[in-house]
Amino acid sequence: MPDTVEGRDAVDLLERSRSAVEPQLRAAVASLPAPVRRVAGYHFGWERADGTEATGSAGKAVRPALVLAACRALGGDPQQAVRAAAAVELVHNFTLLHDDVIDEDPTRRHRPTAWSVFGVPDAIVTGDAMSALALGLLAGDRHRASAAASVRLSACVIELCAGQQADCALEERPPHEVTLDECLAMATAKTGALLGCACALGALYAGAGAEEVAAMDAFGREAGLAFQFIDDLIGIWGDPERTGKPAGADLAARKKSLPVVAALSSGTAAGAELAELYRGSMDAAAIRRAADAVERAGGRDWAQLQAGDRMSRAVGELSRAVPDLAAAEDLLSLAEFVTRRNR
Amino acid sequence: MPDTVEGRDAVDLLERSRSAVEPQLRAAVASLPAPVRRVAGYHFGWERADGTEATGSAGKAVRPALVLAACRALGGDPQQAVRAAAAVELVHNFTLLHDDVIDEDPTRRHRPTAWSVFGVPDAIVTGDAMSALALGLLAGDRHRASAAASVRLSACVIELCAGQQADCALEERPPHEVTLDECLAMATAKTGALLGCACALGALYAGAGAEEVAAMDAFGREAGLAFQFIDDLIGIWGDPERTGKPAGADLAARKKSLPVVAALSSGTAAGAELAELYRGSMDAAAIRRAADAVERAGGRDWAQLQAGDRMSRAVGELSRAVPDLAAAEDLLSLAEFVTRRNR
Repeated sequence: MPDTVEGRDAVDLLERSRSAVEPQLRAAVASLPAPVRRVAGYHFGWERADGTEATGSAGKAVRPALVLAACRALGGDPQQAVRAAAAVELVHNFTLLHDDVIDEDPTRRHRPTAWSVFGVPDAIVTGDAMSALALGLLAGDRHRASAAASVRLSACVIELCAGQQADCALEERPPHEVTLDECLAMATAKTGALLGCACALGALYAGAGAEEVAAMDAFGREAGLAFQFIDDLIGIWGDPERTGKPAGADLAARKKSLPVVAALSSGTAAGAELAELYRGSMDAAAIRRAADAVERAGGRDWAQLQAGDRMSRAVGELSRAVPDLAAAEDLLSLAEFVTRRNR
Repeated sequence: MPDTVEGRDAVDLLERSRSAVEPQLRAAVASLPAPVRRVAGYHFGWERADGTEATGSAGKAVRPALVLAACRALGGDPQQAVRAAAAVELVHNFTLLHDDVIDEDPTRRHRPTAWSVFGVPDAIVTGDAMSALALGLLAGDRHRASAAASVRLSACVIELCAGQQADCALEERPPHEVTLDECLAMATAKTGALLGCACALGALYAGAGAEEVAAMDAFGREAGLAFQFIDDLIGIWGDPERTGKPAGADLAARKKSLPVVAALSSGTAAGAELAELYRGSMDAAAIRRAADAVERAGGRDWAQLQAGDRMSRAVGELSRAVPDLAAAEDLLSLAEFVTRRNR
């Protein structure tokens, strides 16, 4: 797949999507009651904790770009799908707000998380309000896909909730009891669901039929899983200079990421060694040994292969939705981008 | 207003509404992914913590009864509004789940709260899922009021969030800095909004015009405020035998309820005495003295008068929506019921 499509690479595409969607997103957030709006504005990076304007980034906004690109790929007018794109980005950010509360994460996008600045109650109610705002935005759209898109986004939120629940439940269980199937199901719900929904909404807004919508959904899900495999590899072997996280961050936290669970369930001596390391606390030496053990147990190669396999499946699904793949260049470019990113 | 309407009092009406709505509500909850469904089933009192069936009450379900009664009062078929009634009850219960997390309340309906049984993460994601379920239920309804009702319910959820945020913010401020206007605005958002929305949804499902919908909304809001005044009076002078709470529970918690804030801002010696009491911890003697101070400062009489005034306004709004009040007997009966209840 080419890195550059007609001179516009994925970074340009993301930039143009952000420009198209951000006014709608800001207008929606501006409609929230003041104290809730302020927490949301901080979370998006538009405001500092004291309420003054900030110029921080609100994230890459891959999901709204997928909505617009999916709409365009199926012959729709992306301008008409801007509300849907904003709704998807609101849902993504509502889950981040609540996940940060649940995981007690202190930082997000290199800034203190909203709950650590405004307190847990404000972060919970702001997430609640952003979720309702997203669904109301879609329901109130005059586009004829509005009702179907609302139902689809509602189902996606429920799946995201189940994914977050599964993530918490898996983290509390002993590593050797966690199966790869459970990890994959969790990643599908937590990561694949919203990327799939973004593509499905784009298809709905293009007036696509049920089969095309389902294929677009599957494309987004598979790309999302490919992304998750890469993200998990970066969590172990990512370059701290590029990721902004210490080396082996996921191992330090004894996370049950996909390569780790693959290694633990490999039945190899290296897998047993990893299990033993995961019983203790992880100093720098233990992290290095654990990374080595995951690799020797085959977890690294497997995850790399799986990422490629999921991308192939994604392309297969996309070709079902859009037989002329030339029309889907932007989608391919976005899928490529999220699966080779180094943040 | 008669206690009994054609031989059916409000208790019967509530019972019949519950029977009409509960199958839809249970089917909706049953559609949730298993772990989230279990927390929801526990919260509704349908299941014990171990997942076995329970026969507990899921609450009085006043809000769904208001949806059906408002629909009937405006000539609609309440059967068609059952989904909307279930959606409103889901929203009510999602806010209870999250409020219990935020307030760290240990009990709800005489049972341990969901977060205290399943943990905070499960309670947060289950509330999130129930909120999305409610909005998806409305968006997916084939009734022509579906889109307008979804938009209305979404706006209501946002208002409820702002109300909960305001409640937390007020509780953290020094008592003498809290104004009655702020307390009333908070009660309107936290309690009035959903009762108003329930009535508005019933009106929308009856095919009513914008003015009737607005009047129904205002009826529900005013009745909700009347309810809040009575609830606050019960929080101070309620009979522990009937309420199941110790006498003066709200004073023990130094809550800034409406009669308390009225007393604190009365400029009377009794108000100053109450302010002084609220600075210390509240033993039984202090609670008795505080209740006496609220009464002498005029907080009790004022709240009682306000409750009556709000009920009058509610009836006035109702007569704007339904000129022949005979058709609105059920709504009046429900409003009466919630404002004289002794739980």
